[in-house]
Amino acid sequence: MSKEKRVTKEELIEKAKLPAKNALKMHPFFRGKIATVPRCSIRDFQDFGIWYSPGVAAPCREIANNEDLVYKYTHKWNTVAVVSDGTRVLGLGDIGPQAAMPVMEGKSLLFKYLGGVDAWPLCIGPGLDAEQIIQIVKWIQPTFGGINLEDIEKPKCFTVLDKLRADPEVKIPVWHDDQQGTACVTLAGLINALKIVGKKKSEVKIALVGAGSANVAIARILFSAGYNPKKCVFVDSQGILSLDRNDLEGYKEEIAHNTNGEGLTGGIAEAMKGADVMCGLSKPGPDTIKKEWVTLMADDAIVFACANPIPEIWPWDAKEAGARIVATGRSDFENQVNNSLGFPGIFRGTLDVRAVTITDEMCVAAAEEIAKVQEDKGLSETQIIPTMDDWEIYPREAVAVGMKAIEQGLARLKLSRAEIFEQAEKIIKSSRDIAQFLMKEGFIPHYED
Amino acid sequence: MSKEKRVTKEELIEKAKLPAKNALKMHPFFRGKIATVPRCSIRDFQDFGIWYSPGVAAPCREIANNEDLVYKYTHKWNTVAVVSDGTRVLGLGDIGPQAAMPVMEGKSLLFKYLGGVDAWPLCIGPGLDAEQIIQIVKWIQPTFGGINLEDIEKPKCFTVLDKLRADPEVKIPVWHDDQQGTACVTLAGLINALKIVGKKKSEVKIALVGAGSANVAIARILFSAGYNPKKCVFVDSQGILSLDRNDLEGYKEEIAHNTNGEGLTGGIAEAMKGADVMCGLSKPGPDTIKKEWVTLMADDAIVFACANPIPEIWPWDAKEAGARIVATGRSDFENQVNNSLGFPGIFRGTLDVRAVTITDEMCVAAAEEIAKVQEDKGLSETQIIPTMDDWEIYPREAVAVGMKAIEQGLARLKLSRAEIFEQAEKIIKSSRDIAQFLMKEGFIPHYED
Repeated sequence: MSKEKRVTKEELIEKAKLPAKNALKMHPFFRGKIATVPRCSIRDFQDFGIWYSPGVAAPCREIANNEDLVYKYTHKWNTVAVVSDGTRVLGLGDIGPQAAMPVMEGKSLLFKYLGGVDAWPLCIGPGLDAEQIIQIVKWIQPTFGGINLEDIEKPKCFTVLDKLRADPEVKIPVWHDDQQGTACVTLAGLINALKIVGKKKSEVKIALVGAGSANVAIARILFSAGYNPKKCVFVDSQGILSLDRNDLEGYKEEIAHNTNGEGLTGGIAEAMKGADVMCGLSKPGPDTIKKEWVTLMADDAIVFACANPIPEIWPWDAKEAGARIVATGRSDFENQVNNSLGFPGIFRGTLDVRAVTITDEMCVAAAEEIAKVQEDKGLSETQIIPTMDDWEIYPREAVAVGMKAIEQGLARLKLSRAEIFEQAEKIIKSSRDIAQFLMKEGFIPHYED
Repeated sequence: MSKEKRVTKEELIEKAKLPAKNALKMHPFFRGKIATVPRCSIRDFQDFGIWYSPGVAAPCREIANNEDLVYKYTHKWNTVAVVSDGTRVLGLGDIGPQAAMPVMEGKSLLFKYLGGVDAWPLCIGPGLDAEQIIQIVKWIQPTFGGINLEDIEKPKCFTVLDKLRADPEVKIPVWHDDQQGTACVTLAGLINALKIVGKKKSEVKIALVGAGSANVAIARILFSAGYNPKKCVFVDSQGILSLDRNDLEGYKEEIAHNTNGEGLTGGIAEAMKGADVMCGLSKPGPDTIKKEWVTLMADDAIVFACANPIPEIWPWDAKEAGARIVATGRSDFENQVNNSLGFPGIFRGTLDVRAVTITDEMCVAAAEEIAKVQEDKGLSETQIIPTMDDWEIYPREAVAVGMKAIEQGLARLKLSRAEIFEQAEKIIKSSRDIAQFLMKEGFIPHYED
């Protein structure tokens, strides 16, 4: 029935070593994950007089007179910078900008392959503070159509994202995937999970285990989508965030004020008692969440155990303890909450309508569409969310996001649903076709295991 | 005999409008000049677990332990940022970073097509001072294998380049193409011109008309190559740079000290009197240099009239006045001094031996090799320098530059001449083949005039 065959922690860690082992062999073989190619034709050497001096002066002059024309004459319309200071890379912590490069290149690859977006890694630093990261993003904005922040430690990442989104000088959308991207995809899973158990978003009680950037962003998006903050309870390593805690400051103090309407105190057990949903983005398990705590949850409990590489609790343990639906961050278990379902389509739609920002509402629209893609395919306890190879997700998300931006008055181009869909589908398809082609023709060399 | 058919200034300006006219039609059709593609294979969706989380953590960890491994595991070994603040774009002046985008994209296209280098435009600002440009280059250096500065106004460009080259924290080569690139290609032309007229570099008297970044850099490279500073005379808009001038400061004061051994005063006429070479990078002509001034030059005079789009003097006028060899910046005249002959091969060699900087000596080595390519093909008054389609220039330059870096102890990889040549040739060929391929298969759409 389930693909969740019971394995030991040791077996799973061993299994998790396989991609790492392959990565160490394949990275030096290819020496990078993205490359540049011409986007324009080069019929002969005379064409360089059009693409470069002297011809190029004409579009330069036009843009100097009307800077919006940069979207007409250059590739800005389709580009994103993947910006990281390398201070919180995957689960590895602060390994610095140089060591973050493989991740940002990988992200750029996903942007292109899944979303047709020309992304370029930009690992900056080392040792930058929030203001310096903000400064650099503002200085490079002439070059890019959007900014994807990645793997920046908290609370710096909150400051950077919030200030850049609020800055009137910033004319392009800025997104932090570890916040908004994770939140979007988690919400998509939760939407479908609630459909299955027949509960209403305004009524569910949610225990958020872990108070890092992901869960904090998830909560913000949930509230924006109509979930009740007072029914949400956060737990950090010191226990439930409540007004009784006197060690809280900054964003955690704010959370204590806005959530936990019942004034609960204690630890994870107390937060999970009676909860409809447990949303874990905390410490790798499998012992972070105990079976007995799941038994304390409401009927039809929903467990998102998304720590990597080992979930906070094994899915089979959560189920034995009464959970009806379990999701994790792993591709080898069912219901994978995977950021790659979100950002490629979200940026596709954002760029295609030339939105000036990505609002929480656009993010919620994307989540609802991701949920709907799976609903259209068929919902079940073990199928609440699509997988990356359901590639119609991306143009559908692009439509949802683009239409929401237009509705909110944030889009510089007004397109119809059909126009957004067709354009997105065409760009993404071409992007995948090129990749297949380069492999088939040997421009991407064949790797022999 | 000569392709320098006499045309009027008006006809030439009209002709110069054709690339501009085509540029305004073709730029919106292609909407950009470079795009990203995968460099690594994507056999199925499981591969994303190797290129991204969880597998990617392994190379990240390795780089965190030894940062040199970034060259093994990522595309840093082959990347260059094309950085401009848009303050001196072509002949258009300070049009800002947004309007500079078409040029920097074009440059990135040339980098890839001619040198196989993955370059990405980075237009920054607006309104940055030298220290801010230096700061941003230092902050982005984890991402790139080299930096190509472009179209930055003087004297800012001198400060930026000099400080970055001298900064021990900068671990990657930094190059300003408007200085070093122009100097390299001009020197190449001059080397061959002197071969034809049979004069020695240590003895020739040179009038440098224009004291902008190009001529200042040319002088530095000439001196590094063995030309005699005391036999060189600079002229700016106010006249000859001499110790008699009391309006000089900064780099111009320095020039007055180091050059003009005869203590000449006056204007262009006085500087050109008896000169073997006139090197003009000043105001567009055709009346900047008068025929009668050329008649004052030594026998077998060499005239480089490189202002764009109109040379300081028509080639036929210079020849009638006694010049034996005339070069310009235009592709429709003989002897085009074209930067695109330099930077693609220079960076190819620099990256391939992983040199930490590009010294003036490496630049001179490139110039000598460019000159030799033409010598091997056959020298004449109207063929002193190769053209872009002689594509063996680039791997040959790569060898010259790489071997010089190794000789100077600046290369982190010690390769043989044959290794550098083969690698460079392979990368450049593949880069061109991909472009042809994408056109043939329609991934780059066909443009119908």
